[in-house]
Amino acid sequence: MTNTIDIQKLLSGDRRSIARAISFVENENAGAEQFLSALYPHTGKAYRIGITGPPGAGKSTLTNKLAKHYRSQSMKVGIIAVDPTSPFTGGALLGDRVRMSEVEMDEGVFIRSMASRGSLGGLSKKTREAADILDAAGFNIILFETVGVGQSELDIAGAADTTVVVLVPESGDGIQAMKAGLMEIADFFVMNKSDRPGADQAVMSIKMILGFRAHDEHSWMADVVKTTASEGIGIDSIASETTRHREYLTRSGEFEKRRARQLKARIEEIISDKFTVTFWNTERKQKLELELSGILTRSRTPYDVAEELLKK
Amino acid sequence: MTNTIDIQKLLSGDRRSIARAISFVENENAGAEQFLSALYPHTGKAYRIGITGPPGAGKSTLTNKLAKHYRSQSMKVGIIAVDPTSPFTGGALLGDRVRMSEVEMDEGVFIRSMASRGSLGGLSKKTREAADILDAAGFNIILFETVGVGQSELDIAGAADTTVVVLVPESGDGIQAMKAGLMEIADFFVMNKSDRPGADQAVMSIKMILGFRAHDEHSWMADVVKTTASEGIGIDSIASETTRHREYLTRSGEFEKRRARQLKARIEEIISDKFTVTFWNTERKQKLELELSGILTRSRTPYDVAEELLKK
Repeated sequence: MTNTIDIQKLLSGDRRSIARAISFVENENAGAEQFLSALYPHTGKAYRIGITGPPGAGKSTLTNKLAKHYRSQSMKVGIIAVDPTSPFTGGALLGDRVRMSEVEMDEGVFIRSMASRGSLGGLSKKTREAADILDAAGFNIILFETVGVGQSELDIAGAADTTVVVLVPESGDGIQAMKAGLMEIADFFVMNKSDRPGADQAVMSIKMILGFRAHDEHSWMADVVKTTASEGIGIDSIASETTRHREYLTRSGEFEKRRARQLKARIEEIISDKFTVTFWNTERKQKLELELSGILTRSRTPYDVAEELLKK
Repeated sequence: MTNTIDIQKLLSGDRRSIARAISFVENENAGAEQFLSALYPHTGKAYRIGITGPPGAGKSTLTNKLAKHYRSQSMKVGIIAVDPTSPFTGGALLGDRVRMSEVEMDEGVFIRSMASRGSLGGLSKKTREAADILDAAGFNIILFETVGVGQSELDIAGAADTTVVVLVPESGDGIQAMKAGLMEIADFFVMNKSDRPGADQAVMSIKMILGFRAHDEHSWMADVVKTTASEGIGIDSIASETTRHREYLTRSGEFEKRRARQLKARIEEIISDKFTVTFWNTERKQKLELELSGILTRSRTPYDVAEELLKK
């Protein structure tokens, strides 16, 4: 219940209250929605940065260093790492913990891993809600770190103000990035591990394709920032490119438009989730189970059965 | 309407009918569902193989070669490539066309690209429906090729009988694959471009983590197959590993269970899609638009507005 979490303490930044609030929301406890509604007026101040890219691009290290950078400017940083947990580890992986340890002990940084597997949809909803909790608790910067290539369920571009796509020279050329749908979501690219061979060529290839985009002098031009996150090289460039993008969003009015779009998608998701929960009651679940064998043997079709369930 | 596509011609494998049927379904024309219902009794014979992995892993080349392999055994092969098209190309990319050209002129191969961006959900539904069309038209093998890392909306594991995850030595180690959620969906791994340095080490690292999985002598042991797809090396190993997996599925009864699970998910998706289409009528869309500014300024919350829309 909401009275087990002290909203005033949460708003003042109390870490235990934050942790409990996120669990509360993550487990979809009854009352979570009222709690989030009560919190909502206190949100909207934090700047949300999405960090995504293929596995092995060094996103965790980069997120860690970026958090340190913002800390050095006295900003409080929340990190939400979407962690597709494995059924045989059943939790956040050791690797992350090790790499995140540089900021873990810092009171001004709050790190939370959220599992993507096993959650029946609703992940992007929960991730945004966790971000709202951190936002209300006074965190200035929220970093979402996620493996995202292709049409990810957690479409990070739908939760962030600025989306950074992290690649490495081995990620393939610009055509590959385009194929993976990364060009559309990237507000800018980071070429990490840029001390490796092929880095300049990879940067050029991305820039070339970015150059084909329709744009005029008022529109945003996505760029490529080179980093070697493990040595802290280029982290300040990520921060300054983010600032440049933030200024562009504000100046152009795109910031409000983007947040409005995200809000719309969010409400659509809340409604879909509610429908699903309400629709799939015990009776309908049983009915579906009973019909499965008939559909498998082709005496019925999925469409008939769906229609019948909807009519019930 | 369904009468514009001759079902008998489609069932006999007529290419124009297939192409039109897929477009018909893809564009969600009225009558698409009746059409699919009529087709459904003729489906279920094709074996469905998902080929997924990070961008740049060489999935297109590998798919191409695998199609050629099955053709050499007189099987008809359908390829469904999920292609996150870019807003500035607006279609399938040249790269694919070039790489696919080896099998493109073959009458026994049917290739279809489906765009993932811009489609408001429902992609996995459409992909499965396209596969059903090819299945009914007498294709023996259906290859889904998709960029899929993390919680992809088109969860290929939900559409395929056997899911192959393609990695390259540069994709990162086993921990990275685990983090990306690939361990759960892979029925086996392919280490492509295995002539590159670090291949053996990468294979070892994946095998080591696979070894940690709980299993007994009756359960399936995912393995790693080494290939150099561009030179055709190891393609027969992919085919034989797929056969081995298929035999395991049949022997263990897992095949029926898996198809039943997929069917359930499919019906859930049909129902969600129908709900969304019905729910978001003009009146509700307008209402949402009107409320957005109030939510952005925090005088209302997304939850209130969702509740109100649901009550309407």
